[in-house]
Amino acid sequence: MTKEGKVYLVGAGPGDVAYLTVKAYNLLGAAEVLVYDALVDVELLQLVPDDCLQLNVGKRGGKPSTPQAEINKLLVNHCQQGKQVIRLKSGDPFIFGRCTPEIEALKASGCQFEVVPGITSALAAPLLAGIPLTDVVLSRCFAVLTGHDPEALDWEALSRIDTLVILMGGQHLIEIVHHLHQRGRSLLTPIAIVQRSGTPRQQIWVGELGNIVEITAGVSLSPAVIIIGEVVGLRKYLGT
Amino acid sequence: MTKEGKVYLVGAGPGDVAYLTVKAYNLLGAAEVLVYDALVDVELLQLVPDDCLQLNVGKRGGKPSTPQAEINKLLVNHCQQGKQVIRLKSGDPFIFGRCTPEIEALKASGCQFEVVPGITSALAAPLLAGIPLTDVVLSRCFAVLTGHDPEALDWEALSRIDTLVILMGGQHLIEIVHHLHQRGRSLLTPIAIVQRSGTPRQQIWVGELGNIVEITAGVSLSPAVIIIGEVVGLRKYLGT
Repeated sequence: MTKEGKVYLVGAGPGDVAYLTVKAYNLLGAAEVLVYDALVDVELLQLVPDDCLQLNVGKRGGKPSTPQAEINKLLVNHCQQGKQVIRLKSGDPFIFGRCTPEIEALKASGCQFEVVPGITSALAAPLLAGIPLTDVVLSRCFAVLTGHDPEALDWEALSRIDTLVILMGGQHLIEIVHHLHQRGRSLLTPIAIVQRSGTPRQQIWVGELGNIVEITAGVSLSPAVIIIGEVVGLRKYLGT
Repeated sequence: MTKEGKVYLVGAGPGDVAYLTVKAYNLLGAAEVLVYDALVDVELLQLVPDDCLQLNVGKRGGKPSTPQAEINKLLVNHCQQGKQVIRLKSGDPFIFGRCTPEIEALKASGCQFEVVPGITSALAAPLLAGIPLTDVVLSRCFAVLTGHDPEALDWEALSRIDTLVILMGGQHLIEIVHHLHQRGRSLLTPIAIVQRSGTPRQQIWVGELGNIVEITAGVSLSPAVIIIGEVVGLRKYLGT
């Protein structure tokens, strides 16, 4: 009887091995096939056994990423060959991780699978920058969104949420500021932008809606995590 | 020269050791003093060394929890004695973790500290129930909030957010449904309630805004994680 294969869709967390889950760490250590994206930290690739087959399906060196249908086929094929397959995604697989087509393909082929949570950078980046997303007084609620297509969002509603965490918004900072201000959010609202969170090269810009575009002029803010709301001001008191 | 103490405010994640971070796991293994809340899983307490001083500051057996000022003093005192102190919080320390008074006390006393992220149950519970919080079509945005005081929230804004994750809302389910329906959210909106997420005793109720109160009649929903939005319907396709 051949061994049954299984595909684990695993959250890699914000990057550093320290913020992987124990489960993800153990799964990587026993991986037979590793399928990973461009955003995954190279340090994590050291955790798999020497004879593990490593497949990079992300964009690299100007080459486009592997088409989704091909990724699906890779996962299904290796699983059907009885392999323990790790599909590693940066952050958390179910937070902007685009797992749906992969899971649908696995289910259609009768492949065993499991989704393993990771710490999304939407939550890790503020924390590692000393910014709590909630506060008894300043933030009873936070919203997480992507900013790559600002016109598709309900800014009327978003402007009324205490704290916003915006992924993939760095290239649309001007529009984001404009939409929030248009809907009544003060230009004095604190904002922070965090890049390369949780690594020694972490960088943070802090300002207000009214001056953040100027503060970050000329900086390439992709990828970055944007945090907007009064909690950004707590960094002074809670940061190390 | 005496060894310098340090306090680590550590996220315990949703409960199971598997979902701890590698960093939290290693810190627990070297803890000299462990200060923990009632919600922390007992399994995690097994990870500290035998000679680690364990202090439960949560509510237990009808007794009230330790006053905040006393917890602050405990952390400062043990730190000043040169100890490695782990302040373990369920979920993530910066998501409804009430860290502010503790960090302020540590800073005021010149104590070294570090905040270590964990996976909040707001994100782990939906994932482990097979519900992604984002979807390219159904959910461009999600909001996380506590439901223990529904009157304090801006339901006008919240009703327009694609996906809501509500912690501590089980006892106010009727009001939450009422507020959302009042602001135009359809009674057919899918809703799921998850209890004891990530443990073998996990339980899930799935319905719609219009029938969830009836479905969960007589059930004690505290603590529980409530997920509201079309993504709940993806569970059929993405659940294992």
